[in-house]
Amino acid sequence: MSVTAPLGFRAAGVAAGLKSHGARDIALVVNEGPSRAAAGVFTRNRVKAAPVLWSRQVLTGGRVKAVVLNSGGANACTGPAGFQDTHATAEKVADLLGDSAGEIAVCSTGLIGERLPMDSLLPGVEAAAGQLSRDGGLAAADAIRTTDTVTKISFRRGDGGYMVGGMAKGAGMLAPALATMLCVVTTDADVPAEELDRVLRKAVAVTFDRLDTDGCMSTNDTVLLLASGAAGVTPEPAEFEKKITEVCADLARQLLVDAEGATKAIAIEVVGAATEDDAVEVGRAVARSNLLKCAIHGEDPNWGRVLSAVGTTAAAFEPDRVNVAINGIWICRAGAAGDDRGKVDLRPRDVTITIDLSAGPHTATVHTTDLTAEYVHENSAYST
Amino acid sequence: MSVTAPLGFRAAGVAAGLKSHGARDIALVVNEGPSRAAAGVFTRNRVKAAPVLWSRQVLTGGRVKAVVLNSGGANACTGPAGFQDTHATAEKVADLLGDSAGEIAVCSTGLIGERLPMDSLLPGVEAAAGQLSRDGGLAAADAIRTTDTVTKISFRRGDGGYMVGGMAKGAGMLAPALATMLCVVTTDADVPAEELDRVLRKAVAVTFDRLDTDGCMSTNDTVLLLASGAAGVTPEPAEFEKKITEVCADLARQLLVDAEGATKAIAIEVVGAATEDDAVEVGRAVARSNLLKCAIHGEDPNWGRVLSAVGTTAAAFEPDRVNVAINGIWICRAGAAGDDRGKVDLRPRDVTITIDLSAGPHTATVHTTDLTAEYVHENSAYST
Repeated sequence: MSVTAPLGFRAAGVAAGLKSHGARDIALVVNEGPSRAAAGVFTRNRVKAAPVLWSRQVLTGGRVKAVVLNSGGANACTGPAGFQDTHATAEKVADLLGDSAGEIAVCSTGLIGERLPMDSLLPGVEAAAGQLSRDGGLAAADAIRTTDTVTKISFRRGDGGYMVGGMAKGAGMLAPALATMLCVVTTDADVPAEELDRVLRKAVAVTFDRLDTDGCMSTNDTVLLLASGAAGVTPEPAEFEKKITEVCADLARQLLVDAEGATKAIAIEVVGAATEDDAVEVGRAVARSNLLKCAIHGEDPNWGRVLSAVGTTAAAFEPDRVNVAINGIWICRAGAAGDDRGKVDLRPRDVTITIDLSAGPHTATVHTTDLTAEYVHENSAYST
Repeated sequence: MSVTAPLGFRAAGVAAGLKSHGARDIALVVNEGPSRAAAGVFTRNRVKAAPVLWSRQVLTGGRVKAVVLNSGGANACTGPAGFQDTHATAEKVADLLGDSAGEIAVCSTGLIGERLPMDSLLPGVEAAAGQLSRDGGLAAADAIRTTDTVTKISFRRGDGGYMVGGMAKGAGMLAPALATMLCVVTTDADVPAEELDRVLRKAVAVTFDRLDTDGCMSTNDTVLLLASGAAGVTPEPAEFEKKITEVCADLARQLLVDAEGATKAIAIEVVGAATEDDAVEVGRAVARSNLLKCAIHGEDPNWGRVLSAVGTTAAAFEPDRVNVAINGIWICRAGAAGDDRGKVDLRPRDVTITIDLSAGPHTATVHTTDLTAEYVHENSAYST
């Protein structure tokens, strides 16, 4: 279903030869309207890929006709020539659709620092435009994969009959502000750009932004939300926000489960925080502890590594009032050993670490994975 | 030579049964004077082990008669009872030496969250006191090892004939503010406590504080500097600072080379920074990039991962003015691909990554290691 679940969208995914092994590598998503309201959220990395610089500018207008995405190259750290490549890609799509390049968003993913092979890419864009269809959402989702082992798609039906669909890619470099990921969410609801922007920012903040598999922030992260208005439905704002958040959360979950080399999906649930920001800071610090991530990989309920990570934050807490549970067993109480660690069952893939700061009523959950020899292996041999 | 290289110090290292395999696990270092001036620097982790809380208090007096150290247990996150254990250890040493517990520093290292076996530890302290000798420095250095594969010792002769000696332990959890480490530096120079404090802080800031193997900050980090005055020499301040810094740098280098599972020693040299703080921030961000550390392990000169880490910092720089060299080859110039990456030889153990921010005259070097499957293996199975 993916991005073509809502009315008014066509999509395609084709192989243009950017990937060496003949897999799909160009995706195109086109909004047929009547509306083309859109919003976007981009990486906070100060080193931004050319397509991020371009698309951020496009989104200031609040309108997107189409999104062209490629895997097989990030087009990051490629200088002015790389920016020209992005511009040429948008122009190509605009020509093919008889539209303006100023409303064509571009996303790229792959290795940093190399120019895109434009002599393969541009014919690929043309081929994708020729294959646009109402059921092209799955092929598009397939074309944006890099080390992803599966395509990531989601959809929800909204009250009154509108639809929300989405696709995402991302498997490593999932971090701080947006996982390294590309994500396009579509809807046939009729929602103005300002409202899309508000809703997308809120949804991203509690979903993709709370995913932190390896602490590495990408140069290319992009989340786009496009509304065609084709269903003729104007949703109730809170309900619409809920549906968008659900799709983002579903896609974020799929990214987590497919993270490179991971064998555990770890939810770090911080409760009793003085503020939500404190809860997120603590969750993120724990999510980034390589030592803890190794321990969970080894199915070792090493709560000392949780406390030592909590202690690196500026959050409000007293060390002797912190409690920690792993999979429901409170093995640390009041900052010291609590219930029998032998009772903790770490064999399931899903692991929940609950940290009670005893400092207030706020909570947040950050998601991460274990650190494995497979992660090291996969990332030792990515560009070579 | 270790901590007994300077006059006025005796030391011992014994096996008390804290480690299961019968290796040495208690060290004692005693200052015979005439001076007992001392300074200490401790972990900035807010979750501090009992011996850190104790020793920090001792050091406020600027005088240390003896340091007792144990491996085989960190005595962190052990609550009020754990603090009593530290207190009892200091009292035991004081009794044995006929001195005051208020001038006995205590250091512990090992697993967090478990009480120390005091019925083994206290007899061990007594045995150590019985074996104190002028050549006990090596046994003491041996007794503080945990996963360290070698003992770490160092010494330097100062101008005018005074000596500086040191021992350290630390192999994993090497991070932000002090590597996870215990370190005792001794000197027979006659230097007041205030001056020892000033010199030690400066030395630690440019040595141990710039070591970041896995981003994990320990609950137990302690660096102590003790002066006996037995050589009757009052060194020139700048020369003394230089010698102390050299000993700290030598020990830091030994910690780095012995880091758990590492196959590469990586120096991240930041030049052209607007401030030294900027240079350190950038160096540390790059040192913590798991993706980069995996790439270096795979001998892949993946400079894109350097830039994406630099981009997460708040340092002054323009992305299109950053240059990066790996082992002397400038493979990134002006934020884009530079010289041929095929020229980079990553086979040697020592790797230097030079990052030129083109934003000012300041520099700093942060040291880290590669991320390996062996690190994961070692830290998946530490407490079980």
